[in-house]
Amino acid sequence: MHRTHTCGELRATDIAKKVTLAGWLQTSRDLGGMTFIDLRDRYGITQLVFNMETDAALCEQARRLGREFVLKVTGTVAERYNKNAQMPTGDVEIIVESLTILNEAKTPPFTIDDNTDGGDDLRMRYRYLDLRRNPVRESLMLRHKIAKATRAYLDGLDFIEVETPVLIKSTPEGARDFVVPSRMNPGQFYALPQSPQTFKQLLMVSGFDRYYQIVKCFRDEDLRADRQPEFTQIDCEMSFIEQEDILNTFEGLTRSLFKDVLGVDMPSVPRMEYADAMKYYGSDKPDTRFEMKFVELNDVVKGQGFPVFDNAELVVGICAKGAAEYTRKQIDELTDYVKRPQIGATGMVYARVNADGIKSSVDKFYNEEQLKRWAEAFGAEQGDLILILAGGADKTRKALNELRLELGTRLGLRPKDKFSALWVIDFPLLENNEEDGRWYAMHHPFTSPKPEDVAHLEAGGLGKVRANAYDLVINGVEIGGGSIRIHDKDLQAKMFGILGFTPEEAQAQFGFLLNAFEFGAPPHGGLAFGFDRLCSLFGGVDSIRDFIAFPKNNAGRDVMIDAPSVIDEKQLKELAIKLAN
Amino acid sequence: MHRTHTCGELRATDIAKKVTLAGWLQTSRDLGGMTFIDLRDRYGITQLVFNMETDAALCEQARRLGREFVLKVTGTVAERYNKNAQMPTGDVEIIVESLTILNEAKTPPFTIDDNTDGGDDLRMRYRYLDLRRNPVRESLMLRHKIAKATRAYLDGLDFIEVETPVLIKSTPEGARDFVVPSRMNPGQFYALPQSPQTFKQLLMVSGFDRYYQIVKCFRDEDLRADRQPEFTQIDCEMSFIEQEDILNTFEGLTRSLFKDVLGVDMPSVPRMEYADAMKYYGSDKPDTRFEMKFVELNDVVKGQGFPVFDNAELVVGICAKGAAEYTRKQIDELTDYVKRPQIGATGMVYARVNADGIKSSVDKFYNEEQLKRWAEAFGAEQGDLILILAGGADKTRKALNELRLELGTRLGLRPKDKFSALWVIDFPLLENNEEDGRWYAMHHPFTSPKPEDVAHLEAGGLGKVRANAYDLVINGVEIGGGSIRIHDKDLQAKMFGILGFTPEEAQAQFGFLLNAFEFGAPPHGGLAFGFDRLCSLFGGVDSIRDFIAFPKNNAGRDVMIDAPSVIDEKQLKELAIKLAN
Repeated sequence: MHRTHTCGELRATDIAKKVTLAGWLQTSRDLGGMTFIDLRDRYGITQLVFNMETDAALCEQARRLGREFVLKVTGTVAERYNKNAQMPTGDVEIIVESLTILNEAKTPPFTIDDNTDGGDDLRMRYRYLDLRRNPVRESLMLRHKIAKATRAYLDGLDFIEVETPVLIKSTPEGARDFVVPSRMNPGQFYALPQSPQTFKQLLMVSGFDRYYQIVKCFRDEDLRADRQPEFTQIDCEMSFIEQEDILNTFEGLTRSLFKDVLGVDMPSVPRMEYADAMKYYGSDKPDTRFEMKFVELNDVVKGQGFPVFDNAELVVGICAKGAAEYTRKQIDELTDYVKRPQIGATGMVYARVNADGIKSSVDKFYNEEQLKRWAEAFGAEQGDLILILAGGADKTRKALNELRLELGTRLGLRPKDKFSALWVIDFPLLENNEEDGRWYAMHHPFTSPKPEDVAHLEAGGLGKVRANAYDLVINGVEIGGGSIRIHDKDLQAKMFGILGFTPEEAQAQFGFLLNAFEFGAPPHGGLAFGFDRLCSLFGGVDSIRDFIAFPKNNAGRDVMIDAPSVIDEKQLKELAIKLAN
Repeated sequence: MHRTHTCGELRATDIAKKVTLAGWLQTSRDLGGMTFIDLRDRYGITQLVFNMETDAALCEQARRLGREFVLKVTGTVAERYNKNAQMPTGDVEIIVESLTILNEAKTPPFTIDDNTDGGDDLRMRYRYLDLRRNPVRESLMLRHKIAKATRAYLDGLDFIEVETPVLIKSTPEGARDFVVPSRMNPGQFYALPQSPQTFKQLLMVSGFDRYYQIVKCFRDEDLRADRQPEFTQIDCEMSFIEQEDILNTFEGLTRSLFKDVLGVDMPSVPRMEYADAMKYYGSDKPDTRFEMKFVELNDVVKGQGFPVFDNAELVVGICAKGAAEYTRKQIDELTDYVKRPQIGATGMVYARVNADGIKSSVDKFYNEEQLKRWAEAFGAEQGDLILILAGGADKTRKALNELRLELGTRLGLRPKDKFSALWVIDFPLLENNEEDGRWYAMHHPFTSPKPEDVAHLEAGGLGKVRANAYDLVINGVEIGGGSIRIHDKDLQAKMFGILGFTPEEAQAQFGFLLNAFEFGAPPHGGLAFGFDRLCSLFGGVDSIRDFIAFPKNNAGRDVMIDAPSVIDEKQLKELAIKLAN
């Protein structure tokens, strides 16, 4: 071992001990007679002292060391003259007696510091240097801690971690697969799993009863910001359970993670029906850190001659507490915000509830009395600001959701260290595709309808059928979701019929699972948490990148190792494939 | 929840409780007035009783249930008349009051029993049914237990589990990569990792200090029995350490796993130099559950006119304790064994140490006096059997290794529940390829030579240079191995030169790692354990297959899901590839 202690370990109680430390040169200060070096490793920083009077040669050597040199020093722990209460090792320093340069270092292309001067591209190219920075390393240590706490919780409940295969079969349904040509089976391909869904269901058929896995999944999608082609899930499945059992088990996991990892006591997680989430928040993943619920105003505002409202399918608004003082400029910014093409509102109506009455942007159409009725509808008080959108119902709700979030951010209602969790339940089972008029499974074709809604599984009623499907939403982010699965083969056959599969097509695509279901499938269900996203939520960071050791960029490239890359003609030949051009 | 208790839970103390159980029908016995059903789940088996007198309709229903039906029953726990001490629940049975068929089951294609009548192919095709059998499920639960104990041990030593990427870059060195065409980067490919080797070294450059990961790796090799295209490693790396620290850390892990998982106290693990392993066992992974060391006999047997020995480069033998009573037939079997083409010995000489003297198969050439010198060389005693092979040194050692193992098996010296571990150390750094005359890294090009051997890193001395490389061998199986890495760039450059790389070639293949090493690489090293193999060793089973939930066959196929498979023309087009024919 090249050290007796780490750089984060020594305290006043160690004074006078002879120690050996190893680490990287963080900073060096040359004060003429003395040279101070901060030596860094994963565990902390310790100050080294070199004295011209005691050992001029050694001190000279120390002066020539550059940033990020790898050093091994032996010396004596001494009390520090200028103690540093900010550092755990701040009471001591090492009077160095011998110094070995374990390795030299070129000057890094950016500073290895909490606030670095390196841009994103540079940091990605030199990821191994970026990983030296405290915030990045701490993000990955947090990830480790969350994984560990997850395993401890699930192990404690008799879940078994089972590794499912990575080289599986491609299915044309759903998102695009990454595929792997098989050399031993020319012309054939494996696919990388988008999730272990079918395997975990098979494990339930096998009687494993409680399965989990922290597992890499793959999706060949066009990468939006902060989506990675490979990502990690906490994947779970349970047998002989009902929806209530799943919700309780994973609410337990979530609360235990918050407690163990962050020391946060999370209250029991409320539940909201999908229909209510859409009605009151215009989103199936509402940020419930703040209230500001939607209020529908059709009954209140129509028929007063304001054509925008009169012609709208839905008039709906929110009330921002204490925001009546917003300037015209601030309100114009919000109007511009909702009029951006991504959001697409045509305009915004506002009303300030002032001490001297309510002032709206449509005073021409609504008198004081009528505006009072608006305020009543919102329960608005003096000092509040009412913002209203109007138009087609779905589109307007979506736009108002964006406005609500933007306003929440501006009003400081979405702090990173406040956590508000929510189960969104009773998702629709099916959604109709406007383009081809077909019905698609909102979750996947194995999701169970709610028993009381099975009767509606007929033409005309399909849109009303709710699923035993649920999402866990924290701070407006979908952390995970799942469903109770269909285990009855007649119901499954009916579902495939509704989804437009012939029995032969169903067999071709999902044959092995359908066959398995013939041999005694237990009632089962499960869920998956997005692990990268969960980590970034815990870390209070929007981007998942720093919670992944070696992430890829938006073009799916690892710019550090320069992958993907061209491969040998010989490799292609062995795999029996050719480049298209 | 469809149950109040599991099928492995109820005891005499639960008598008179009203309970609900759910599980699979294991067996059913109809005794006329009564019907008994064994209900099975992951946790055990509980006996259900249906009585014609009490509830004829229910009993009739129970009689019609088939094997593997999924049932939910409610009833009262009663004392069992015929107690079964073999079963944890054997003191009780359930007097069933209500029965729900949760799912029906077709008759399985093989019996779900510890000793099944299903052949390998059938079991693989219906893996989800095979996984219902106790031995297979227990193998996977053992795997989970070993993974859990591994994590607990390494977490306790401040190792951080870091996930390294699965979509990486192909390197032409070493074994064949699986590759993944990139849709977003047409004509380019990712590779699946054969190991996270370079990433873990980069994490050391990043200062992670102690890394581990239980991780899937991939190798597109022709599959010998019991090799899988995807396999799992316990992968580790440490900084600021020397070889001794790695050996001690992972010996600690190994002994702790034996203790925690099997309750076995493993003594401290002896070390053997590679040269000695080859000299005394003819193998770099000797099975040390039994002694039977090689004895070299050139000095003892040559010059007596027996041309086979006189012309041999090496005459070497083993002494099987107490095997002098082997019949001529048994000895002929051994001779046939070593003469098989895979082993390739041309013959075998034997000598029995009997009460009335030593009888050899070459008495024509060696008299009693000379044979006594043979026995002395082996330390052979009355009742022992000496077996000798002769020929080229390497080939003869290899053949004698096979003979020793075969004899050990026949003599019952290799019981599955006895464990003998060994560190094989001081591997050669380089090996010369006879075909092209080039030197290749025995481990990989980043393995460090022993400091005292660096002086030999010149033409003529290359074969003598030993590496800081080590393997952990248990019961003759290589469980894992690793090395101290080169962290000095000059030494690394020299190594690449020896391996025949130009600096440009080295840069093209390993550029990102070499560049990283310029920014302050600490001394580091590590190792990887083959996790599937470790599990099968702990399970006392030769095959790794039952320790993998969904294994592939020797053609790399998953016959259950029928993968790999052909993919759509549209998929190929998107990926910018074509089939070669």
